[in-house]
Amino acid sequence: MTPDVISANPAPAPFAIPVRIYYEDTDIAGVVYYANYLRYLERARSDWLRAEGIELDVVQRDLGAVFVVRRVEADYLQPALLGNLLTVTAEPIEVGASRMTILQRVLRREGERDTLLFTARVTAAFVAADLGGPVRMPRAMRDALKKALPPAITDPA
Amino acid sequence: MTPDVISANPAPAPFAIPVRIYYEDTDIAGVVYYANYLRYLERARSDWLRAEGIELDVVQRDLGAVFVVRRVEADYLQPALLGNLLTVTAEPIEVGASRMTILQRVLRREGERDTLLFTARVTAAFVAADLGGPVRMPRAMRDALKKALPPAITDPA
Amino acid sequence: MTPDVISANPAPAPFAIPVRIYYEDTDIAGVVYYANYLRYLERARSDWLRAEGIELDVVQRDLGAVFVVRRVEADYLQPALLGNLLTVTAEPIEVGASRMTILQRVLRREGERDTLLFTARVTAAFVAADLGGPVRMPRAMRDALKKALPPAITDPA
Amino acid sequence: MTPDVISANPAPAPFAIPVRIYYEDTDIAGVVYYANYLRYLERARSDWLRAEGIELDVVQRDLGAVFVVRRVEADYLQPALLGNLLTVTAEPIEVGASRMTILQRVLRREGERDTLLFTARVTAAFVAADLGGPVRMPRAMRDALKKALPPAITDPA
Repeated sequence: MTPDVISANPAPAPFAIPVRIYYEDTDIAGVVYYANYLRYLERARSDWLRAEGIELDVVQRDLGAVFVVRRVEADYLQPALLGNLLTVTAEPIEVGASRMTILQRVLRREGERDTLLFTARVTAAFVAADLGGPVRMPRAMRDALKKALPPAITDPA
Repeated sequence: MTPDVISANPAPAPFAIPVRIYYEDTDIAGVVYYANYLRYLERARSDWLRAEGIELDVVQRDLGAVFVVRRVEADYLQPALLGNLLTVTAEPIEVGASRMTILQRVLRREGERDTLLFTARVTAAFVAADLGGPVRMPRAMRDALKKALPPAITDPA
Repeated sequence: MTPDVISANPAPAPFAIPVRIYYEDTDIAGVVYYANYLRYLERARSDWLRAEGIELDVVQRDLGAVFVVRRVEADYLQPALLGNLLTVTAEPIEVGASRMTILQRVLRREGERDTLLFTARVTAAFVAADLGGPVRMPRAMRDALKKALPPAITDPA
Repeated sequence: MTPDVISANPAPAPFAIPVRIYYEDTDIAGVVYYANYLRYLERARSDWLRAEGIELDVVQRDLGAVFVVRRVEADYLQPALLGNLLTVTAEPIEVGASRMTILQRVLRREGERDTLLFTARVTAAFVAADLGGPVRMPRAMRDALKKALPPAITDPA
């Protein structure tokens, strides 16, 4: 694959939301409390789903199903601080019948460039709202989620 | 009323629970974040109800009703700090058919005496779980709640 | 006072921010957990101060002082729900040398009109960051805060 | 190594604390919100350190250093529910000069046995309180932390 081909088919920018840091987010060490990053991740995932037409309250009411997180791998690289305006991304990297894995980043713009503060890989399952077991996502939902998958590396030959 | 009579019928100590302060509770100012006191109040109210045989998850399932807070008046007197072991009280001062008012305090023991850090008056209503409107508490529940009311000031004559 | 005079000197709209409701905000009763409203109030107060040029992290570092909440009176009128996009206001009604009182509302737009969900009156003191005692606000800060005070009721005669 | 030797030198039970689940912990899906497990982990780590004579507020003041989390790997196995009384453990599995890794579990007793709800591996670094870089733990602190390490597998020959 040549650079020309790459620039002709750039990977789309991942879905992102702004998150402002308030007193509620900080702790006595003067930085954002470590559990709170998972709240920001959920905000970005929810807004990404809403942008794809998937409202979680409607899903719970109409399909009787909810997304539950099964696994989180999180790396804390640099602390976020009071007053920071962060960028939080949500980028699916795998979408199955009743499960998906999302790559998420927290960044802070500093002058010309973004500093990566935090990165996580989150696996969520789609399950019955009574938590009885996995539920297959409707085809339209799954297609919507797949739209944001990175382009597959295919053989150009 | 004479001192003898008072000591013969002391007011019972209000229901109280211990609450330890962790990093999650503090903010960058080095003290407990102001909204978190309301979490401690709810812990004390829930444990008080449980001690009276009222489990909120059972109530929601069996009676289809929940307590919702209607009003809070809160005074912040002294800050609580990381590592503090606090005492949080719950003391009903009025119990109606579908509403109650609870006096709550947060104290910190210092040597021989307690320092009052925070005080609140919380009014809660008993409503349908679909939030459709007020629900009369069952007689047994109401009687249990009333047990902790302070003794009425009655005419001794 | 005639309608003409009113429309010529309308009260300015209070400072307001949008707040989206996520899973993190709700509880098992299906509505926003009561302590979380105080987090939204703080977000609106912080953003109002920032809009007036007052950054709380800079204030803490440069003046060695912080705002601490002394009193909250809160009324819960209607529950906020998952997915709601709320409006949260901050409107000072009294600004003293080292203390201010702010009226705050949480509203939800429904069709043509706003439904009032929650209202609070918050009193905050400006104190030394080591919590040693009250600090007089710098004149410029106080003037900035007073700009948003409602117009005084003056004798039109 | 024979069974006799094993029973003569059993691994000590890991440090554990009770955690009660309240309304504040749940979300609209009726279970504990996923970020909140990280709060329980921190409570168990803090209480374990306190039990070893290490008070985090004293450490921050006297040594000018704090523990910050660098990495979390978390698996959500079964949901915790309103009213549950959980057990949360903290068990160091590696203690270095300025870093440690802790294995943590959340369990719920059901009749005769414990059900494992959640498990995590948390890596924390000891850094300057101004977040300037890693700090070597004092020898006494490191020795205290190492006391709870599982017994090394040594050659019995």
